[in-house]
Amino acid sequence: MSQRVFNFCAGPCTLPLEALEEAQAEFVDFKGAGMSLIEMSHRAKEYDAVHQEALALLREVFGAPAEFEPLLIQGGATLQFAMIPLNLLTPGAKAGYVMSGSWAKKAFADAKPCGEVYEAWSGADEKFTRMPASDEIKVEPGTRYLHITSNETIGGIRFSAWPEVSVPLVADMSSEYFSRPIPWEKFDLVYGGAQKNLGPAGLAVVFICKSIVEGLNPNLSAYLRYGPHVDNQSLYNTPPMFSIWIMGKVLKWIKANGGLSAMEAAAEEKSALLYNVVEGSGGFYNSPVKASDRSQMNVVFTLSSDKLTAKFLAESNAAGLKNLKGHRSVGGCRASIYNAMPKAGVEALAKFMQEFQAANG
Amino acid sequence: MSQRVFNFCAGPCTLPLEALEEAQAEFVDFKGAGMSLIEMSHRAKEYDAVHQEALALLREVFGAPAEFEPLLIQGGATLQFAMIPLNLLTPGAKAGYVMSGSWAKKAFADAKPCGEVYEAWSGADEKFTRMPASDEIKVEPGTRYLHITSNETIGGIRFSAWPEVSVPLVADMSSEYFSRPIPWEKFDLVYGGAQKNLGPAGLAVVFICKSIVEGLNPNLSAYLRYGPHVDNQSLYNTPPMFSIWIMGKVLKWIKANGGLSAMEAAAEEKSALLYNVVEGSGGFYNSPVKASDRSQMNVVFTLSSDKLTAKFLAESNAAGLKNLKGHRSVGGCRASIYNAMPKAGVEALAKFMQEFQAANG
Repeated sequence: MSQRVFNFCAGPCTLPLEALEEAQAEFVDFKGAGMSLIEMSHRAKEYDAVHQEALALLREVFGAPAEFEPLLIQGGATLQFAMIPLNLLTPGAKAGYVMSGSWAKKAFADAKPCGEVYEAWSGADEKFTRMPASDEIKVEPGTRYLHITSNETIGGIRFSAWPEVSVPLVADMSSEYFSRPIPWEKFDLVYGGAQKNLGPAGLAVVFICKSIVEGLNPNLSAYLRYGPHVDNQSLYNTPPMFSIWIMGKVLKWIKANGGLSAMEAAAEEKSALLYNVVEGSGGFYNSPVKASDRSQMNVVFTLSSDKLTAKFLAESNAAGLKNLKGHRSVGGCRASIYNAMPKAGVEALAKFMQEFQAANG
Repeated sequence: MSQRVFNFCAGPCTLPLEALEEAQAEFVDFKGAGMSLIEMSHRAKEYDAVHQEALALLREVFGAPAEFEPLLIQGGATLQFAMIPLNLLTPGAKAGYVMSGSWAKKAFADAKPCGEVYEAWSGADEKFTRMPASDEIKVEPGTRYLHITSNETIGGIRFSAWPEVSVPLVADMSSEYFSRPIPWEKFDLVYGGAQKNLGPAGLAVVFICKSIVEGLNPNLSAYLRYGPHVDNQSLYNTPPMFSIWIMGKVLKWIKANGGLSAMEAAAEEKSALLYNVVEGSGGFYNSPVKASDRSQMNVVFTLSSDKLTAKFLAESNAAGLKNLKGHRSVGGCRASIYNAMPKAGVEALAKFMQEFQAANG
């Protein structure tokens, strides 16, 4: 086996090694069943135990109140961009979208064919380098929900404080899911792709407030309605069993490592290590992001030239610090430091950044 | 490791052992990358090679002409029940559905909210025990496509000959996908969930005729349109990388074992072994299905009483012949014998059936 690298990819991304090794050991013969888990019926008792445990852990680890139901739906956050307005925007209702960056723009574009939506705030003029204050968000009368992207993976910004508005929030939390607790009373629905903090790609996790399910649009095909997923505990059709299985292992790892409060504390500590290097570099490294809105999951920074950036990326890669290139739409560098990124990885990056500056500053 | 059983589950189902063992070996460290495949960016060169190889193998193994594009879409066949009418039923168009059983009924129910659809034939009065002859299918003027379920997993029937109609066919082939070649000129779109002959759950494979893409409904969110999937080679958003990886291995296994013609010949031989036991049992076992329309993938049979059925299921299970219970909606027994079910498994079942009859007949 080759040495395990530090993988700073924005997602899919590094997962707990223990979860991977456990899955590997069980992969061909699941607990003596004489077959792999992925060969089983999704109605088999062995799979059902895996499925129900994953649902229970989602609730427990995220601290979701009883009125919220976790749903496991394929298609990633991208399909949710459609399902949310299709379900929630019944006739006469509209929705506001906070335009905070690349992912908010996608969510908004996908909502347009589904109902009446509007921009409640836009950071476009400031190149998406900060989140709005609550009083900057314009909520129009008749608004069913305000959609926010709580952490922008590409821009590297997040809502450090949640918006105070008069309507329910719907939040895409994909790239900071399960890294901080949330004030549930503000939300009708919270969602995210699993492939950052929760597990492999192939799955979105949606927490929906059960009291809204009855009022959703009934005139949709079954998979696109939340109702059948709620009624069938996410077993309306064959679920993505592998992704759910691994997610369960990742959730167990989060729980064993102190749960959400420990993840949040670690995220603060790890991101501070990197932001401190940036701030202390005297301008060798720069953060384009307003200090109070800096993501604790996706640390974006720039160097003074494309040439220096290329050198930084080549040398960090050679040093086993992988996938530090910023998103192709913005350039620069980005270190995604999700829950499963060990502190040692972030320390190694911080040290590398300082050494690189000493050699090239 | 416990002994590998013969798993007759209707899906998810038995997969080639070689594919599972190979994936297990590569699981934690993918080809020396220092990380698992499921931890990689879907834009990484290692994953891209896996992705492109899977697409190429889908084309090659299924013998798809150049004008058909294979798409990898989450949500299973169930999401396709919505996407097909949403995309194809532009204003003024309607679609006919052949009501051949449980899955056709689901496809039809899910199409209703999306456009004008009608029943072109129904086998309900005959309890879905046969497929229609071509002249029984009533195609109305203005029909954009005729939807068929080429093999009904629960009823155990299939189209042994393809319908001769004046409009393009759209076929749900889920439970017999990649077990027989198809006359491509008849189809605009062919689809199926992967979790029978192709791999793990979490993926539908759609073959779409490229010439129809431009005329599809543009007024849908991105994930629900076929266009973005075609334009981005099924990388519009993060794909279900694990399921695609394993599917590639299963396709290689099909190719190495003689391809589609060998799979078809094996399916004929394996299903005949079981149907011959049923036919030769003097009524101890019965097939409810018209002889010419019997599925080669899902062999449905009954015994004379619920008590005897229960005994058969208990004893076969104890003998390592797993998951022979018929679907809860129809009862009886069902042996699903997909591509990866070895002939030895079918022979063992045939022998068990004869011995059970000798002991209980």
